[in-house]
Amino acid sequence: MIRYKAIISYDGSQFSGFQRQTNARTIQEEIEKTLMRLNKGKTITIQGAGRTDAGVHAYGQVIHFDLAERRDLEKLRFALDTQTPEDIDVISVEEVSNDFHARYSKHLKTYEFIVDIGRPKNPMMRQYATHYPYPLDFSLIKLAIKDLVGTHDFTGFTAAGTSVENKVRTLYQADCNFDSHRQFLIFTFTGNGFLYKQVRNMVGTLLKIGNQRMPVEQVRIILEQKNRQLAGPTIAGNGLYLKEIIYEN
Amino acid sequence: MIRYKAIISYDGSQFSGFQRQTNARTIQEEIEKTLMRLNKGKTITIQGAGRTDAGVHAYGQVIHFDLAERRDLEKLRFALDTQTPEDIDVISVEEVSNDFHARYSKHLKTYEFIVDIGRPKNPMMRQYATHYPYPLDFSLIKLAIKDLVGTHDFTGFTAAGTSVENKVRTLYQADCNFDSHRQFLIFTFTGNGFLYKQVRNMVGTLLKIGNQRMPVEQVRIILEQKNRQLAGPTIAGNGLYLKEIIYEN
Repeated sequence: MIRYKAIISYDGSQFSGFQRQTNARTIQEEIEKTLMRLNKGKTITIQGAGRTDAGVHAYGQVIHFDLAERRDLEKLRFALDTQTPEDIDVISVEEVSNDFHARYSKHLKTYEFIVDIGRPKNPMMRQYATHYPYPLDFSLIKLAIKDLVGTHDFTGFTAAGTSVENKVRTLYQADCNFDSHRQFLIFTFTGNGFLYKQVRNMVGTLLKIGNQRMPVEQVRIILEQKNRQLAGPTIAGNGLYLKEIIYEN
Repeated sequence: MIRYKAIISYDGSQFSGFQRQTNARTIQEEIEKTLMRLNKGKTITIQGAGRTDAGVHAYGQVIHFDLAERRDLEKLRFALDTQTPEDIDVISVEEVSNDFHARYSKHLKTYEFIVDIGRPKNPMMRQYATHYPYPLDFSLIKLAIKDLVGTHDFTGFTAAGTSVENKVRTLYQADCNFDSHRQFLIFTFTGNGFLYKQVRNMVGTLLKIGNQRMPVEQVRIILEQKNRQLAGPTIAGNGLYLKEIIYEN
C-alpha cells in the first residue's frame, strides 16, 4: 500500500462543501469517483485537511489516499486533474509515508477572505468575494485584528453546538490589507487549526467593528468571555479561500 | 426628452452577448426589461457602445437611452443597479445632450484580455480568463505586439464576411504584462474602434508567435497582406473585458 498526498484547488461555488453528503455535489465525492475509475472500479476514500463549507474555495487544500500499487506521479496527477470536473484542479501528487494524515498530521493552515467593498460590487467576483457596501473605518479593523493573534480559546468565534471539545487554537498571523485598485479588503489568517466557521465569524466581527457598530475592544471581550452572542454575524462563505497548508517536517 | 448615459459592468459568462436576440439571454434585453418597469411599462431601447460577444465581460460598457422625464440620477442608478440581475451592475448614470450617442460619438475604447498560463489553470478564473497551458517566449510577444500600434487596415484580424466597409482603425496602445503571482498574461489594447473579433484574433496570433509556431514578423505580414488566413485562431472570449470608454469632449 502506498500513500499519496495531493494538493488540490477548487471553485467552491457549485459545491455543497468538501465533505461527502447524500444527494449533494461535494468535492470529496467527485475526487473519489475519479479515483475509483483510475483504480479498476475499486473504492478509494480520501481524507481532506480542511472540510470547507458550501461556497468556500481552495487554492491549497491537501488530501491523502492509499493505492495498492506504485504509480507514476505526473501521470496520476494529470489523470486526476483532467478527469475531475473543471471546477477541481489537481496541482501536485507525491508519495508520503504511511503515517502521514492530511487532517491529523501537524500543520499550519492559511485562510484568505476577500471582501468586495466596491459600490456597486464587481459582478465578476460575486461568487468569489463577499460584498460589504457599508462605510468602514479601516484603522479600527487594523487595531482589532491584532487581538486575535496568539493562543486563545476561540469558543466565542465558533458555531454553537460544535462537538470539538478543546477550542484552544494558536493564530500566528492575522492581517488585513486593502487593494485600492480592486476595492477589496483581503484578510489573511494563519494558525495551527481553525474551529467550525471561525474565520467567517472573525471577519463578520471585524467588519462590524470597522462599521462602528461594535467597539474596537470587542475582539478581546469575545475571547475573554467565550460567548458567541457577543460576536458579529457569520459572514457568507463565498469570499473564503483555503490558501495554503504547511506540514511539520 | 432627456438622454441618459450609463456606465455598466457585467459578467458575460451567462449571457449570449450584449445585443438583443430571440430566445437568448442578452444584456440589452435585461436592461430594457428593467427600464420598461421603471417607465410605467413603456418600451425603452438602449444603445451600447460595444456589442460584446457571448462570454465577454465588461467593466466599463457605456449605454444611452431616452426618458420623457427628468429623474433623480442616483435614484435612477440605484433602481437600475438593484433591479437588473446580479450579473449586471450599473456604476453611474448622467444626463447628456441629445446628440450624444454611445456608439457613434467619437471615443477611445480599452479592452483587456486575460490569459491564464498556469498549469493547472486557476479554477476560480475558468470563466474569467482563457487558459493557455503551452510554452511561451514572452519576449517574442513583446516584440510582435508593437507592430499592431498605429493606423492600419485590420482586415487580416477581423472575422471573414463582416459588413463594415472601412477596416482602417488606429490602435494607440497595445501592451502585454505578466502577473507572475497569478500566472496571468494581461493584454491591453486602446483604440478608436475595433472590428468584429479583432481583439480575440490579435491575441490568438500573438500567442501563436509566443509559442513559436509563427514568426515574430507575422503581425506585420498580416497587416500588409490583409489576409485572415495568415493570422492565428480566434481565441475563446472568456478572457476578454471591455474595460473603459472615453468620449471626446
